[in-house]
Amino acid sequence: MKAVILSAGLGTRFRSEKPKVLHTILGKPMLWYVLQAVKGSGIQEIGVVISYMGELVEKALEGEQVMFYHQKNPKGGTADALLSSADMWRSYDGYVLVINGDAPLVSAQTLRNMQRFLHMVEEYEDERLSGVILTGFLPDPTGYGRVVKDSNGNVIKVIEEKDANFEEKKINEVNGGVYIFYAPHLIECAFFIKPNEKTGELYLTDVFKVMYERGYKVRTFMAEDAVEVMGVNTRWDMAVAENVIRLRILQHWANMGNTLHQPESIWIEPDVSLEGDVEVHPNVSLKGKTKVGKGSIIGKGCLIENSILGQAVVLEPYSIVRDSIIEDGACIGPFAHIRNQSRVGQNSHIGNFVEVKKSLVGRDVKAKHLAYIGDAHIGENTNIGAGVVFANFDGKKKYETYVGSNAFVGSNSLLIAPLKVGNFAYIAGGSVVNKDVPDGDLAISRPQLRLLKGKGEEKLK
Amino acid sequence: MKAVILSAGLGTRFRSEKPKVLHTILGKPMLWYVLQAVKGSGIQEIGVVISYMGELVEKALEGEQVMFYHQKNPKGGTADALLSSADMWRSYDGYVLVINGDAPLVSAQTLRNMQRFLHMVEEYEDERLSGVILTGFLPDPTGYGRVVKDSNGNVIKVIEEKDANFEEKKINEVNGGVYIFYAPHLIECAFFIKPNEKTGELYLTDVFKVMYERGYKVRTFMAEDAVEVMGVNTRWDMAVAENVIRLRILQHWANMGNTLHQPESIWIEPDVSLEGDVEVHPNVSLKGKTKVGKGSIIGKGCLIENSILGQAVVLEPYSIVRDSIIEDGACIGPFAHIRNQSRVGQNSHIGNFVEVKKSLVGRDVKAKHLAYIGDAHIGENTNIGAGVVFANFDGKKKYETYVGSNAFVGSNSLLIAPLKVGNFAYIAGGSVVNKDVPDGDLAISRPQLRLLKGKGEEKLK
Amino acid sequence: MKAVILSAGLGTRFRSEKPKVLHTILGKPMLWYVLQAVKGSGIQEIGVVISYMGELVEKALEGEQVMFYHQKNPKGGTADALLSSADMWRSYDGYVLVINGDAPLVSAQTLRNMQRFLHMVEEYEDERLSGVILTGFLPDPTGYGRVVKDSNGNVIKVIEEKDANFEEKKINEVNGGVYIFYAPHLIECAFFIKPNEKTGELYLTDVFKVMYERGYKVRTFMAEDAVEVMGVNTRWDMAVAENVIRLRILQHWANMGNTLHQPESIWIEPDVSLEGDVEVHPNVSLKGKTKVGKGSIIGKGCLIENSILGQAVVLEPYSIVRDSIIEDGACIGPFAHIRNQSRVGQNSHIGNFVEVKKSLVGRDVKAKHLAYIGDAHIGENTNIGAGVVFANFDGKKKYETYVGSNAFVGSNSLLIAPLKVGNFAYIAGGSVVNKDVPDGDLAISRPQLRLLKGKGEEKLK
Repeated sequence: MKAVILSAGLGTRFRSEKPKVLHTILGKPMLWYVLQAVKGSGIQEIGVVISYMGELVEKALEGEQVMFYHQKNPKGGTADALLSSADMWRSYDGYVLVINGDAPLVSAQTLRNMQRFLHMVEEYEDERLSGVILTGFLPDPTGYGRVVKDSNGNVIKVIEEKDANFEEKKINEVNGGVYIFYAPHLIECAFFIKPNEKTGELYLTDVFKVMYERGYKVRTFMAEDAVEVMGVNTRWDMAVAENVIRLRILQHWANMGNTLHQPESIWIEPDVSLEGDVEVHPNVSLKGKTKVGKGSIIGKGCLIENSILGQAVVLEPYSIVRDSIIEDGACIGPFAHIRNQSRVGQNSHIGNFVEVKKSLVGRDVKAKHLAYIGDAHIGENTNIGAGVVFANFDGKKKYETYVGSNAFVGSNSLLIAPLKVGNFAYIAGGSVVNKDVPDGDLAISRPQLRLLKGKGEEKLK
Repeated sequence: MKAVILSAGLGTRFRSEKPKVLHTILGKPMLWYVLQAVKGSGIQEIGVVISYMGELVEKALEGEQVMFYHQKNPKGGTADALLSSADMWRSYDGYVLVINGDAPLVSAQTLRNMQRFLHMVEEYEDERLSGVILTGFLPDPTGYGRVVKDSNGNVIKVIEEKDANFEEKKINEVNGGVYIFYAPHLIECAFFIKPNEKTGELYLTDVFKVMYERGYKVRTFMAEDAVEVMGVNTRWDMAVAENVIRLRILQHWANMGNTLHQPESIWIEPDVSLEGDVEVHPNVSLKGKTKVGKGSIIGKGCLIENSILGQAVVLEPYSIVRDSIIEDGACIGPFAHIRNQSRVGQNSHIGNFVEVKKSLVGRDVKAKHLAYIGDAHIGENTNIGAGVVFANFDGKKKYETYVGSNAFVGSNSLLIAPLKVGNFAYIAGGSVVNKDVPDGDLAISRPQLRLLKGKGEEKLK
Repeated sequence: MKAVILSAGLGTRFRSEKPKVLHTILGKPMLWYVLQAVKGSGIQEIGVVISYMGELVEKALEGEQVMFYHQKNPKGGTADALLSSADMWRSYDGYVLVINGDAPLVSAQTLRNMQRFLHMVEEYEDERLSGVILTGFLPDPTGYGRVVKDSNGNVIKVIEEKDANFEEKKINEVNGGVYIFYAPHLIECAFFIKPNEKTGELYLTDVFKVMYERGYKVRTFMAEDAVEVMGVNTRWDMAVAENVIRLRILQHWANMGNTLHQPESIWIEPDVSLEGDVEVHPNVSLKGKTKVGKGSIIGKGCLIENSILGQAVVLEPYSIVRDSIIEDGACIGPFAHIRNQSRVGQNSHIGNFVEVKKSLVGRDVKAKHLAYIGDAHIGENTNIGAGVVFANFDGKKKYETYVGSNAFVGSNSLLIAPLKVGNFAYIAGGSVVNKDVPDGDLAISRPQLRLLKGKGEEKLK
């Protein structure tokens, strides 16, 4: 079986300058979900029909094994779009699955079931099907195209809400916009579709009427969960679809043995993985290729992106970790910010209002309060006091700072890079360190404190 | 048509010291929504009946074109409340819309439709209606007053749950607490209402029985969405109503072409506007008269209040902006706090743990880590290092600091106001700057660093 | 009446190393809720059957008046588990309530009603009941055990979904897993339960068939809200149960006269109390034994744990208070962190990016920007500038700092403990204070500022 994904639509109701199918759901383009479902159903030969800003779609799918077909007239309609890909299936004696790029809720399982249904019908009824339509049963079908069938269950036509008569409007089986066609019948019938009187477009849904008239059989396959047939036409639809996919991901990770508090408030993207016994508190976002190790606790409101957390890591509330690694047993936050390829070693503690940028921090290091650690290499068991700043920028260039193991950097000190501070070095509080401190030395820069008798009270009164 | 809003109730179940109708929904008093709906339906002459703490209600509606009427006996009942406003409509040969101040979900559209219904009935049936009741259809009407009608659809009476018999309790059409009365019939009938046997109050709902007995016709108009008839009697009701109104606002902005992630977690107040293609992440609050320019991104958990964001502004997570302006392309946060009439110029970057208070920051300025910028004027392209503090307070008074363009303020420096730092000035890290720095000068205050051989290791062992 | 709580299950589907009943819901073990309901229904003699990691369960219930019974074979089944506690009720001529430890949604009220139902049936029908089963009515009963009854309403048997025939599957009354047994009949019948053919386990639900065969009467009592019969078998179930309990708590506090915004986003644990007229903004967490005084405002995203807030306290967004006391009228945050037995006095203001650890702060103190206050005692009306650090750690030990009243600690100062700063003392900005400052004195340590003509511009170009 081959597949064609129709991604040429303008998506006018999105009021957007970029193609609708590139709007993201949990950090991935809507189209990505459709492609995953198609690939996951076992189909390998996949075409994507593009038109409006098609180059952006091509770029978004870079590296994927798909062929692109350009619809010349972006207002040609869905049948015209599908025919744009005819080179792919014109001479193919087999089936073509056709799906819209704005149907991110259709699952691979459903597409597999649809294919199995097709083969079962053909096997048991010994008759070729020209098409299968994925449908959903909606208690309130308002707004959806209805599928009209004869008493044998063969599709007569698919009719849009606005063209449906009173009886047809009462049909609860709606068109899900996913079809499997027998290619020779499709090519034969598609050319008989007439342009719509109002819009001049060629609608793919009109092909079923042609097929019925020619005696070709089309059946419907009903999705188990009607939500799968929901198309995304507006940004509100997209928000709803994002919530549906999010819920699926959340249920998966809960059932894999992780605890989620207020799951409806948690954001987990598709490429994230949790190792088990992870406790995720409300309002957490886990994004990109994040991995969280066994037994870790992610506090309320944390945001982790493209990062690796070891086992038994504790993230206190409102911590942000991006593109970094946190090793086993480390404790981060609250209100900490780790970023740019930083690594925090085992059992280290990065506390509140501390930023760690592009730095390697060894194990058992403590930097618990208000500090900026940038472009630094810190050994093991070193203490970084409150208010310490690693000054890595001189107005023109950035430099690195090396601090050894078992060192102590006193509060409110300033380490001016490039700089090396040795093992067991001790920086007295408030020092400005602008030259290297050898192992074991104490460094201090501190003007004498003067006490002016009674002058304090004078200033304050 | 005239309108009377009944806002004299005690709201006992709110357990509050202030009038119920002044409790806020999305930052506006509940009563504000009712007033907007009435005004939006085209009615200009509006009376508000007040009693308990009425002066607070008057103050809350300052500037609105409404007349206030005082109900002398706050326990007189709703009919007594309405009669308190009789000066307004006693001699008026027209209609009076009566609505409770605790019905914030009734829409202007519904009030308009109700008026249109009244006129249509009168036109087509050629008979005067004495009243129209807004009703809702509830599958489970428990707790609501039921509307009892005769076979012609004329209202016989409105009966409270506790007074209803078995048959009446099965009625699903409930009283929405919004009425249109023909004033001459209202004044005639209202005086026949008898005090309730238990409470001694005069209930407005009893007027319908009187009208029916006198042969006056009252019809019902059913709200399209039954949620509109929900009254707010408890703080839980208020939370539900707030969610309903919030959802309406969110759907509006999504359909105007803005992307909302986890919309159910987002708070947008009625006076906010989004220019389009704005991306709003989960848990964001947009409050007061905030405007967000095209293509801006509001990160997770941000709070923006009474502020203007230009185009393509990026707010990183957990940033707070209040009463300030952020210009095009600027980047704020994460964990930044901009407040008190500050302005951040184009493409400037205010980073984590930085507070900007009452300061004007020019374009292309960077202040990326842990800093307090207060009462400052900063030119263009200036760099403010980590840990820098603008000391604007000497224990008695506040002073301002001026920093020029293309300047560099090194980390952990202290700028003691009043102060002027010139263009291309360079403050060395850790300096305490207590006198002006001319253009192009380098300022440094730094005691010598002393290294004490082996003393560090001694202190640490 | 006595009660037995069955907490011996392995909870395999939880994929957890600790017993399922110890997983927490709103900070309390699941089992705690069951125990509260049993105790709240008036039962005082309570047994808990444990097995797998039973010592952890015993520890979690330390201090509770319960007896523990060990099921020797953790795969013995629920009847075997109950029989493990037979010492408690073997010779008891009365009733035993049996409930699973994973049924946290059953309320005390429902257990009371169940007992009342038992006594009423016995009184009015003058016949002894051998058992009462708590049931729920589910529109979709899939997955639940069904209760099969005869035409008189007596229970014939309880049958699991997988063993039910077509007709039985259509029964909507499902087993809630809570039973009251007449002990003599229970002991008599329990021994006739046969091991399940597939698993070899003894299922307690099989006792009802035995009872029916022996002519003993068992009736059902249907829970008013079917959610109560929901068992917690997976972590997703647990998340759902947590949301249900959370909603109950939120509705309680709303109805007690507190305002909750976006209540579905708010986390309030069972031991928290709100004094009234408290305003709680979205995404707030109130944990442990927290009390919030009248009229306080808890801003968006705050987390308060085991802390006491006085009246009219204002917590600005994203503040964390743990194990501390905030006195009347104080203002905390945004982005503040108060912890470790700290106390903030009346009307004091702790501002953004300030951490207060194990410190006593008097009234009318201001510390509004970027500061670390650790192990400190601060008097009244003192001002702590931006960037101030209380250096309480010298690399080996922690020391305390005392600052008097009406003092002024200039920005970016460092106070090196142990230290005493007197009343009306004035620390000039940027000072490193390493000796005591007497009352009224001004302390300053500041190297001279040097200006190097044109050197700034040189460095920057």
